[in-house]
Amino acid sequence: MPTSFRSDNDAGASPQILAALAACNEGPAYPYGADEWTRRAEAALARVFERAVGVLLVSTGTAANSLALAAMSPPWGSILCHRMAHSNTDECGAPEFFGAGLKMVASASPGGRLDAAVLARELGSGRGDVHAVQPSGVTLTQSTEEGQIYGREEVAAIGRVCREAGVPLHMDGARFANAVVAAGCTPAELTWKAGVDLLSFGATKNGALGAEALIVFNESLAGSLPFRRKRAGHLLSKMRFMAAQMDAYLHEDLWLRNAGHANDMALRLADGLAMVRGVEMLTPPVTNILFVKLPADLIAGLLSRGFDFYHGGRWDAGVARLVTSFRTTPQQVDEFLAAARDIRKT
Amino acid sequence: MPTSFRSDNDAGASPQILAALAACNEGPAYPYGADEWTRRAEAALARVFERAVGVLLVSTGTAANSLALAAMSPPWGSILCHRMAHSNTDECGAPEFFGAGLKMVASASPGGRLDAAVLARELGSGRGDVHAVQPSGVTLTQSTEEGQIYGREEVAAIGRVCREAGVPLHMDGARFANAVVAAGCTPAELTWKAGVDLLSFGATKNGALGAEALIVFNESLAGSLPFRRKRAGHLLSKMRFMAAQMDAYLHEDLWLRNAGHANDMALRLADGLAMVRGVEMLTPPVTNILFVKLPADLIAGLLSRGFDFYHGGRWDAGVARLVTSFRTTPQQVDEFLAAARDIRKT
Amino acid sequence: MPTSFRSDNDAGASPQILAALAACNEGPAYPYGADEWTRRAEAALARVFERAVGVLLVSTGTAANSLALAAMSPPWGSILCHRMAHSNTDECGAPEFFGAGLKMVASASPGGRLDAAVLARELGSGRGDVHAVQPSGVTLTQSTEEGQIYGREEVAAIGRVCREAGVPLHMDGARFANAVVAAGCTPAELTWKAGVDLLSFGATKNGALGAEALIVFNESLAGSLPFRRKRAGHLLSKMRFMAAQMDAYLHEDLWLRNAGHANDMALRLADGLAMVRGVEMLTPPVTNILFVKLPADLIAGLLSRGFDFYHGGRWDAGVARLVTSFRTTPQQVDEFLAAARDIRKT
Amino acid sequence: MPTSFRSDNDAGASPQILAALAACNEGPAYPYGADEWTRRAEAALARVFERAVGVLLVSTGTAANSLALAAMSPPWGSILCHRMAHSNTDECGAPEFFGAGLKMVASASPGGRLDAAVLARELGSGRGDVHAVQPSGVTLTQSTEEGQIYGREEVAAIGRVCREAGVPLHMDGARFANAVVAAGCTPAELTWKAGVDLLSFGATKNGALGAEALIVFNESLAGSLPFRRKRAGHLLSKMRFMAAQMDAYLHEDLWLRNAGHANDMALRLADGLAMVRGVEMLTPPVTNILFVKLPADLIAGLLSRGFDFYHGGRWDAGVARLVTSFRTTPQQVDEFLAAARDIRKT
Repeated sequence: MPTSFRSDNDAGASPQILAALAACNEGPAYPYGADEWTRRAEAALARVFERAVGVLLVSTGTAANSLALAAMSPPWGSILCHRMAHSNTDECGAPEFFGAGLKMVASASPGGRLDAAVLARELGSGRGDVHAVQPSGVTLTQSTEEGQIYGREEVAAIGRVCREAGVPLHMDGARFANAVVAAGCTPAELTWKAGVDLLSFGATKNGALGAEALIVFNESLAGSLPFRRKRAGHLLSKMRFMAAQMDAYLHEDLWLRNAGHANDMALRLADGLAMVRGVEMLTPPVTNILFVKLPADLIAGLLSRGFDFYHGGRWDAGVARLVTSFRTTPQQVDEFLAAARDIRKT
Repeated sequence: MPTSFRSDNDAGASPQILAALAACNEGPAYPYGADEWTRRAEAALARVFERAVGVLLVSTGTAANSLALAAMSPPWGSILCHRMAHSNTDECGAPEFFGAGLKMVASASPGGRLDAAVLARELGSGRGDVHAVQPSGVTLTQSTEEGQIYGREEVAAIGRVCREAGVPLHMDGARFANAVVAAGCTPAELTWKAGVDLLSFGATKNGALGAEALIVFNESLAGSLPFRRKRAGHLLSKMRFMAAQMDAYLHEDLWLRNAGHANDMALRLADGLAMVRGVEMLTPPVTNILFVKLPADLIAGLLSRGFDFYHGGRWDAGVARLVTSFRTTPQQVDEFLAAARDIRKT
Repeated sequence: MPTSFRSDNDAGASPQILAALAACNEGPAYPYGADEWTRRAEAALARVFERAVGVLLVSTGTAANSLALAAMSPPWGSILCHRMAHSNTDECGAPEFFGAGLKMVASASPGGRLDAAVLARELGSGRGDVHAVQPSGVTLTQSTEEGQIYGREEVAAIGRVCREAGVPLHMDGARFANAVVAAGCTPAELTWKAGVDLLSFGATKNGALGAEALIVFNESLAGSLPFRRKRAGHLLSKMRFMAAQMDAYLHEDLWLRNAGHANDMALRLADGLAMVRGVEMLTPPVTNILFVKLPADLIAGLLSRGFDFYHGGRWDAGVARLVTSFRTTPQQVDEFLAAARDIRKT
Repeated sequence: MPTSFRSDNDAGASPQILAALAACNEGPAYPYGADEWTRRAEAALARVFERAVGVLLVSTGTAANSLALAAMSPPWGSILCHRMAHSNTDECGAPEFFGAGLKMVASASPGGRLDAAVLARELGSGRGDVHAVQPSGVTLTQSTEEGQIYGREEVAAIGRVCREAGVPLHMDGARFANAVVAAGCTPAELTWKAGVDLLSFGATKNGALGAEALIVFNESLAGSLPFRRKRAGHLLSKMRFMAAQMDAYLHEDLWLRNAGHANDMALRLADGLAMVRGVEMLTPPVTNILFVKLPADLIAGLLSRGFDFYHGGRWDAGVARLVTSFRTTPQQVDEFLAAARDIRKT
């Protein structure tokens, strides 16, 4: 396989996390989360968020997101989301499935992030009108599909709008670690202190084998979730093996170190690419995803030299998405840059 | 935790399977199953079943069962099952969820297994009557909830009944390995050669961390499954870590060796218990689950001495379920028996 | 068409109800229930039940039942019902559809009616266990599928059991009028005073063209129903035409007069049949449905002479169901009896 | 109630249709559509469409639309629609409910109608990609929410695009009669001959009490519909009373005469309004719906003089929707115009 900047889900697992799997394998353990590793993961998450939190471990971000959105909305409700939201475009209708036909409604917010003022208007639409789906929640992606972040004030503004409308706020944190590192504030400040009710806390893209936590800050949303998880086939019998991943992920800030490295690599990549002739930087290097516009010969040349990344397709021709991970090495970045410079003779 | 005969999901993972996780962690891998380990697991399963098969890896048996049943039945269909079927009683309505409201209908079959003649009658009920749910499939559990098996002829009889009724047959093989060892025939003979269309092939209870394969023998049922899996949040991004488990599970017949050991331990336990005064054997030792009737003092005494198992509850008072696993040791069995004899002074 | 004792849905509409349709057709009316006829029907129902009630008019009993059951139970809940309950056997899984996969669970109650003590035990099953569907409500049929009734004390006993379990009680009153006449107590006594939370109040079988009211006694269950009704396509735009039916149905006790007549005709039929040689009365004549066991020659003879009724099929061979309606005439009954006597030479 | 131009569902029923209800009430009739009036309605629809058609009578347009869309798409499919489509905005998520979570996707087509070229592009999106909902059908509204029509060539262009993409085409014909009159071609030319697979054929807005027919031109979509209808509570027991409405609606072209009258009244209204100072005609008078921009004093004045219509709300301030019906009289139109002229002193 070529050197990949396709996605952070191409990378394997952190050695510390693999080691934790072996370490938890001694003796029997109560199944379905009644084990000590699950308790430890829950405690670790409570420390990270500086308060008691509800925790449901699941194996995919799609499951975490869909369980959250289904718990927020009745079947005749709508969830407002960004038009590019993964839950709206890349989960094959999973929120609609988990939510018994709820409606994902793309906000008219301009740009790559949800706008609190636009949301406020949209949350008022059709209220109490039996012919209309009822606005029942908002989901935002942190960091965003374009590698940007909502700062704590931006989250808080959306949180206020949700509270005023009486609906919960969900954060899809598939790349939450990358956002925390970039935001320069605490996980608590970026979530419940800013009005987030439910968080999909991703670990898979940032070093786990397959482990996500649905974090419940708003206890009134907690009751249905254990049933929903089981009913969706997402309650693991040998839960310790997922809990141990989450525990190791949080231990000694591995999650922030991994994300920090990935962000650094994206910055290194951006700094280098900005110097390559004909390259247009479309997004600033904030987290671990870059969008750049590349000349056709550069795309073709890089691919032919063994580098891999997404380009075109759902984006305009020439637009490339470059993603770094906890495993991306400075050398890989430098080789990519050297190739780019060579192709473009700069 | 006490020495557990509660369930085979108390046991951890086989060392060979843990080792495979570490081994597959080198370098990047295409996500969502486009990796070489998934190809290897698929090839291994094709060898096991002596033919090309469709394979969908998922993390739980509930997911495998529910995806299968949903693919077999329209929302207005019914799936005939044994009244004790796990999918009917212990999955929180997951088949109804995945199947958009399909109906699990408990067969009137007497005893612990489905009866082909009874099924034949039930499959004819309400056909074409718009007021009735339409019989749309059968699911049987192999080995059964009571640790017994359907022999190849018994499966084939049910398979014939299904074919005559024009409906597919699903096998819930959460403990398929234990059944294969006990049945003395090949996996192929016990499944597709006997008319099974879909198989939930379990690995988790028998040594994996969390890995099940939905095996598709009947290609006409295959089309919807990839979408159903994704939509249910069961398509793992870092699939290699599940595929590597399945590959190691099948390598050099680890799955049959593990199951054979568990079955042997149940036999050792049964042989010993039969000699304990006041113990009534309710089921013959066929696989790794025993049902026994124990005097109250024996139950209390064993629990107080650090042994753990289910008793009473959904079963009659005094009825205990004893489950062995690939990790149960002869010494654990012998200690349990010695304690039993001591309590009952035999 | 032969003289029919097949079902009360064979009969047409009461002339008074047809007249009401014409009478309400003057001038425009606000749609979707914002019209004066809907107000009048609501007021009439409040008078019938001696209290304020929520009312949702719908065109079928299946819709009324399914909306009610869905409002009572989460998707992972179960509704306990009689094994013969129409909602369980004759609505093509409609409750499962409306309830996003809820589970209809047939009670083990012996005989033709639900037993409070059995229900009490069943309502305790699996509570709080994430692997089990959660008991979430009870539905009983009044009058029953066998033409019998629950007396006010029997309803109250079930109501108490439901209250103790914290779940609501629904009454399927497709033939509620027949039950009220037979029970000799008020509609209020037979429903909310006995603990009924939701009632499907049928008018179609007893003289309307197509009009049923879902009556909400328990306000805490009311909130979702208008949305559920619209979403299911059951909110009529020209609602006045359904409301006028209901209003006329209740006017000057037409509903009770119609039902009383039907019950009387069943009694006349029963009295006569009991004198026919070889006829075995299987149920006492309580409402407008009789079950009788008839010799084969009598069944064949009656059918050949132009009488129509259900026999055999889901019941044992020789068992016939005879249903009278508001339109059945004494002469029709007498002709049926004369034919029976003639065939059996008595 | 004031003179209403709010909606054609304010109007009552045609006398001929009411008379048909009384006429069909003699004697018993087989229930659930096994009656002669249903046969007659089916035959009448076959004549209208010049071929054999499948017919499912239901009581609302929401039911007809939702049954159709659900039959077209798997739960993981999407239905492309106009952003203003009633099924997308005014049915409380009914298609998502009937379709087990299918996704209504608003086309980017500009203007008030779907554009074949835009649809062609959108129908190709995400095909075979397990992460994306699968484009599974198109629905267009005839006549449109803005009172315009798709000509036979426009329907045919969309039909071709659907056929090329291998997906069915549904027409929401809540006001199909108005479109047929305006289009100057036959019902057949406007539907199946132009590639329409399923048609919601509305009668309620145009003179029935509550009767719609889901017309099936494409037999491959027919199989599931009877079960879907029953399961949704939309199979009426006393079907004759709905069938008689449909039969009378089609008899001697009542449906076209009613619609022609409504269209004529809209034209009369448009002609008059165009002469009123300050009125801006936003849509040409094609069917029975007009959109006009009115000065604020005109809106207020008309409302205060006893005329009723929708304005503002989901449309821009000053925009009014005026709807005529089979019952609108020339005198009512003239009074409205006189009032408008008087208010605006022209």
